[in-house]
Amino acid sequence: MTDQDRRQRRREGRRPGAATHVGVQPLLQKIPPLEVLSAEGADKIHQASMRLLKEVGILIVDYPPAAETFKQNGAKVEWVEQTVTYPNGDTTQVVGHLVKIDEETLMHFIKQVPSTFTQLARNPVNNLNFGGRTTIFAPVYGPPFVGSLDFGRRRATLEDFHNFAKLAFMAEHIHHNGGTLVEPNDIDVRERHLDMLLAHITLSDKAFMGSVTHADNARDTVTMARILFGEEAMQANPAVLSLVNASSPMRFDDRMFGALEVYAHARQAVLVTPFLIAGAMSPSTMAATLAQQNAEALFGICYAQMLNPGTPCIYGSFLANIDMRSGAPCFGTPEDALALYGGAQMARRYHIPYRSGGNFTASRIPDAQSGYESAGTMWPTVQAGVNFVLHAAGWLEGGLISGYEKFVLDHEVCGMMARFVNGIGLTDEDFAWDAYQETPPGGHFLGASHTMRHYDTAFYQHKVFNMDNYEKWEAEGAADSYKRANAVYKKMLKDYEPPALDPAIREELLAFAAHRRQELQERKPRKEWKR
Amino acid sequence: MTDQDRRQRRREGRRPGAATHVGVQPLLQKIPPLEVLSAEGADKIHQASMRLLKEVGILIVDYPPAAETFKQNGAKVEWVEQTVTYPNGDTTQVVGHLVKIDEETLMHFIKQVPSTFTQLARNPVNNLNFGGRTTIFAPVYGPPFVGSLDFGRRRATLEDFHNFAKLAFMAEHIHHNGGTLVEPNDIDVRERHLDMLLAHITLSDKAFMGSVTHADNARDTVTMARILFGEEAMQANPAVLSLVNASSPMRFDDRMFGALEVYAHARQAVLVTPFLIAGAMSPSTMAATLAQQNAEALFGICYAQMLNPGTPCIYGSFLANIDMRSGAPCFGTPEDALALYGGAQMARRYHIPYRSGGNFTASRIPDAQSGYESAGTMWPTVQAGVNFVLHAAGWLEGGLISGYEKFVLDHEVCGMMARFVNGIGLTDEDFAWDAYQETPPGGHFLGASHTMRHYDTAFYQHKVFNMDNYEKWEAEGAADSYKRANAVYKKMLKDYEPPALDPAIREELLAFAAHRRQELQERKPRKEWKR
Repeated sequence: MTDQDRRQRRREGRRPGAATHVGVQPLLQKIPPLEVLSAEGADKIHQASMRLLKEVGILIVDYPPAAETFKQNGAKVEWVEQTVTYPNGDTTQVVGHLVKIDEETLMHFIKQVPSTFTQLARNPVNNLNFGGRTTIFAPVYGPPFVGSLDFGRRRATLEDFHNFAKLAFMAEHIHHNGGTLVEPNDIDVRERHLDMLLAHITLSDKAFMGSVTHADNARDTVTMARILFGEEAMQANPAVLSLVNASSPMRFDDRMFGALEVYAHARQAVLVTPFLIAGAMSPSTMAATLAQQNAEALFGICYAQMLNPGTPCIYGSFLANIDMRSGAPCFGTPEDALALYGGAQMARRYHIPYRSGGNFTASRIPDAQSGYESAGTMWPTVQAGVNFVLHAAGWLEGGLISGYEKFVLDHEVCGMMARFVNGIGLTDEDFAWDAYQETPPGGHFLGASHTMRHYDTAFYQHKVFNMDNYEKWEAEGAADSYKRANAVYKKMLKDYEPPALDPAIREELLAFAAHRRQELQERKPRKEWKR
Repeated sequence: MTDQDRRQRRREGRRPGAATHVGVQPLLQKIPPLEVLSAEGADKIHQASMRLLKEVGILIVDYPPAAETFKQNGAKVEWVEQTVTYPNGDTTQVVGHLVKIDEETLMHFIKQVPSTFTQLARNPVNNLNFGGRTTIFAPVYGPPFVGSLDFGRRRATLEDFHNFAKLAFMAEHIHHNGGTLVEPNDIDVRERHLDMLLAHITLSDKAFMGSVTHADNARDTVTMARILFGEEAMQANPAVLSLVNASSPMRFDDRMFGALEVYAHARQAVLVTPFLIAGAMSPSTMAATLAQQNAEALFGICYAQMLNPGTPCIYGSFLANIDMRSGAPCFGTPEDALALYGGAQMARRYHIPYRSGGNFTASRIPDAQSGYESAGTMWPTVQAGVNFVLHAAGWLEGGLISGYEKFVLDHEVCGMMARFVNGIGLTDEDFAWDAYQETPPGGHFLGASHTMRHYDTAFYQHKVFNMDNYEKWEAEGAADSYKRANAVYKKMLKDYEPPALDPAIREELLAFAAHRRQELQERKPRKEWKR
């Protein structure tokens, strides 16, 4: 028996449902999305983005291979090295390959993007269908800090990462385990991706995201996924989804395009996201911001298709706006909600799965502002028909903090959204005819047989939000929802049990990670992993 | 010169804009509403409600004149006096006139409801257009308690009423001053309506709501409005809007129908609202709840049209659901949001202005739960295209508390909504072409001429939500939004200045109130007011 055979046998040995966790089900939207643009309006945004790509162009920094690929596929590429002076006298250096692409060339590649795809999870009951009418929730991504009622704010550690990976695994309305749940600042920056991947793989059996901080880290991600899933399965369906941000405006760099290249060649899913704080990285008007977002997202997706046509891609949107008075980023604003809806319409226009939204807030703790702003993003997110919702739980302070209590509170809203998208049932049973036979005018339905039949399923049942009246609430300590959520997350971590993982696979993953740590510590070039 | 002439002259003497306050502008929705029901689905709800009205019927309690009116207009009316036994053995008494009406008879009257109307405000710049694509915000209505960070919760007084009337007047995104802002518990219950009306009229110059607690109180409302507006003006446009609740399920009583009758005869606007906590006052399924709501709302509106065809009416919805485990009412739930959207579709079907939503929460203080639940009602409210939003600011603990800080926090969201409904501008200026000439790829738009041109108007500017980073926020006292709002409401009350009111009108209003107080204290029958 070869090593290859042995691994294959081990993978097949993983029984579906071997983990204690029940398979996750993304939201399936039965309600049509709200559209804030007319068809003509969406067409104007499209045309403006085509003009931006053809006339302004995208700057590729420190990555000649990407510029070369665009050139070979018919784009105009020129080397620029110039100093630009702003109206206020400030100057900026522009150095790199400026790529200008026309609509026909671009759309040839955009048409090759699959409209739906399935991301594998190591427990197959947690496989996820992206695109169409599904909505998938994933935790917050990227914060350097963690927050809690217990300690306020502090720099995150690997232990925090493990905690959030456990919470994501346990949270029934979180479908995807996400990626950089927090920055594990206590680990050498070169090795962090290994620890984060090990955590996602060993502490959860939901789908996860790959590393994009270096092309070699992307290669490590693919290697670890192959140990877990096998190369053949990963050719049919991606096992890794990775977040490639544009360094907006109108720019991509070697780090992100280098990682994108690795994933595209391995046929793993790529989420291309312009990172826009309107007023700074894009103009302060939403039409221009949407056009720029469209140009940047399609450009990155186009590159993935040039490298490997048919690579699963997601059209990403991360969009906030500055506070004009202070320059601080604002979240949950009406302008951002409009752009979120508009972006969804653009992604649908190209039949590409859409990523946007989340439980966003600028607030530093889960206070009332945090609740208003988070729900003020989450309702538009779901009603826009977003397919992949990164930052669905845990986000605080504009993404600088992963909040333990915030995770629990946001998760409540995720649960509500899972109900909302089902719409209103219209069967005879839903019209409750027998209840009106039992209940006279002026009576009550509390004791009706119909009410009893629907007792368990009629309404969303809250896990952390509390409906007690003032007297009971006060008598029991007058805890606000921040304090209440504190107890919930601690109980979740206490109750956590890891999902089963084949010991041989675990062993190989650990061996690979040890091997790579050594290479990285000795600053040796990366060699492909052979067991 | 007769008294009548003198009053008329006085009224004309009121200069538009004499008050310091700028005229309020309701939201004008440029985005199509989200529809959760298909046309067939809405038709099913309609048909089910027609069946309820024809087969189950509406019970009119203690009010034979209304039963008689329905009978004369073709409804089947029978006297019922029976004991009904629930499946669990409990019993209930059903006593009154049971009215069964068919679709043709009902719809004959429903078609006479005006699709739009204007409510007069004593400052004409604050007149409000109801219906169509407008959305009007009014404060919380009805709480017996007030809440604040300073004292927790206590029973409300007339001073609290005055405070909320002042806040409503000063709040730029609150268009309508509302009605029972709090219950002034320190005033004799028989006289409260006089004090509340005097407060609305003298402390604000926005439109207000009338009393519905007794037919005589409705008459007092009409008399006071006539002193202020003149009878002729009030025949052309209503000066009073009043809230007539059904005592659901499928029941109206003498108190509400008695008040409705006074207003309909005076051609003042009537807001007919079934009061539904699904699972108790309606079945636990949303289809049945919507059908019942439709039946009750149309029945009440039909009565107003029978009394005075063309009376301005609003199709009301107040809809929450019980927590099945505790029986407590829940707010901001996904089921309620679905019903809110569905109700809007029904009202649009009949071309009747729609009332629903608000900043609802079950929470007792403005904490994170309160924010999530409030925004989780307010976003659906606005996106459903609701025309009149009672409870848009101040609601806490399921409507038991008018919260001072909550008012300020909710008002922030009202301001955001006023921006959201404008949609995305698509002019050449909105596409910011010159900004891309000034800003190279990889640059920033902070200093672009386009950004400077839009500096003041680009984004919603927060009044109480705060965008500071953690360091600044902590250094300045780490105030959560509850504490921040506390300072804001106190400053508003400190800065309050009353709008001008003709001294002669004020004098007559006070004289009328004194006269009525005497009648009420001496328990004399009400006589029509003659100066």
